[in-house]
Amino acid sequence: MEKPHTLDQIISAATEELEERGINGLRVRLVAERAGLSPGTVTHYYPTTQHLLDATIESFQQQAWDMLSNHPWFEGESTLEQVLTDFYGLCRANRELVRARFFLTAREGNVSDTNWRQSLEPFLNRLAQAYGPAARLYGHSIVLLTMRFAFHSKDELLAICGTKDLDAAHEMVIEHLVTLAASGPWSTTSPRRA
Amino acid sequence: MEKPHTLDQIISAATEELEERGINGLRVRLVAERAGLSPGTVTHYYPTTQHLLDATIESFQQQAWDMLSNHPWFEGESTLEQVLTDFYGLCRANRELVRARFFLTAREGNVSDTNWRQSLEPFLNRLAQAYGPAARLYGHSIVLLTMRFAFHSKDELLAICGTKDLDAAHEMVIEHLVTLAASGPWSTTSPRRA
Repeated sequence: MEKPHTLDQIISAATEELEERGINGLRVRLVAERAGLSPGTVTHYYPTTQHLLDATIESFQQQAWDMLSNHPWFEGESTLEQVLTDFYGLCRANRELVRARFFLTAREGNVSDTNWRQSLEPFLNRLAQAYGPAARLYGHSIVLLTMRFAFHSKDELLAICGTKDLDAAHEMVIEHLVTLAASGPWSTTSPRRA
Repeated sequence: MEKPHTLDQIISAATEELEERGINGLRVRLVAERAGLSPGTVTHYYPTTQHLLDATIESFQQQAWDMLSNHPWFEGESTLEQVLTDFYGLCRANRELVRARFFLTAREGNVSDTNWRQSLEPFLNRLAQAYGPAARLYGHSIVLLTMRFAFHSKDELLAICGTKDLDAAHEMVIEHLVTLAASGPWSTTSPRRA
């Protein structure tokens, strides 16, 4: 099967292009060049840059939600700090995609229903099954905050943290997220097996 | 002084127009009509809809940050639930402005430094003075989450909360925000007077 491989190449090239040039710098020609494909091959699968952007965001989200939904933390085999460090790191490595996602959400006024069901829902469901309904809101808030912190510019992050040391700021953010998350329903409840 | 009064009229009309028609529906002609002014008067102060939008967002933010920075909660004369209920209500009443703010931030990649210093900074500073440096991050996160929840569409809010009752969803959100905020440094520290 050549198709899935080609799609992977395109999405992976588009992700790199996005991180280097931002949403507005996304060009089919440059993505094709980076993937070692012809522009025609890219437009065959993704007719416009909007299609390409949507698919790239979806691919990142899928990776993020999979990581969260299947994290060993659920099995008590990892810590809250580890799952948050992993997720924050993933979001920071994909800052422009996180930004693109926020941009589209704010532009449209809401996440589309399809997008929603395909994305965070399985993670929130798993949280609710393990820790009761209040865990949904907690999961949503912590995920949102982690993404938002990852997407902050360096200057903003330093301003929010009130420090001039970027490494210290990242540590403060992780510690802050852990403290916030630690007040969640998992702190007082053992996971229920569904 | 006629000028401040005219500006107030324009901003107030623009706010109403925004809530009714959204960012993309903002028109100088309609704002002027609603304010009982000529389009020329509006464009004299705000040459483009972007100027008008920026000023309207700034005015809302100022109102929001003033409310937070001067809330009786700081004097121990109100509850965490009250300050969060007040802020959530204000943001919900200005959903389109909150959305416009998120949209611009996501588009630009960060809040401009000027905007930042003029906005949340005094509130975060007051928190840090009263409760130490960790209170900055807490304040920032709770404010961000409250705004984000206020801006969610009805369907999203119901999906996140896992309920079909909108009033119940709003109550769950407030309760969630109070629980989150209650884990902040104010829970264990009395406010220090600067």
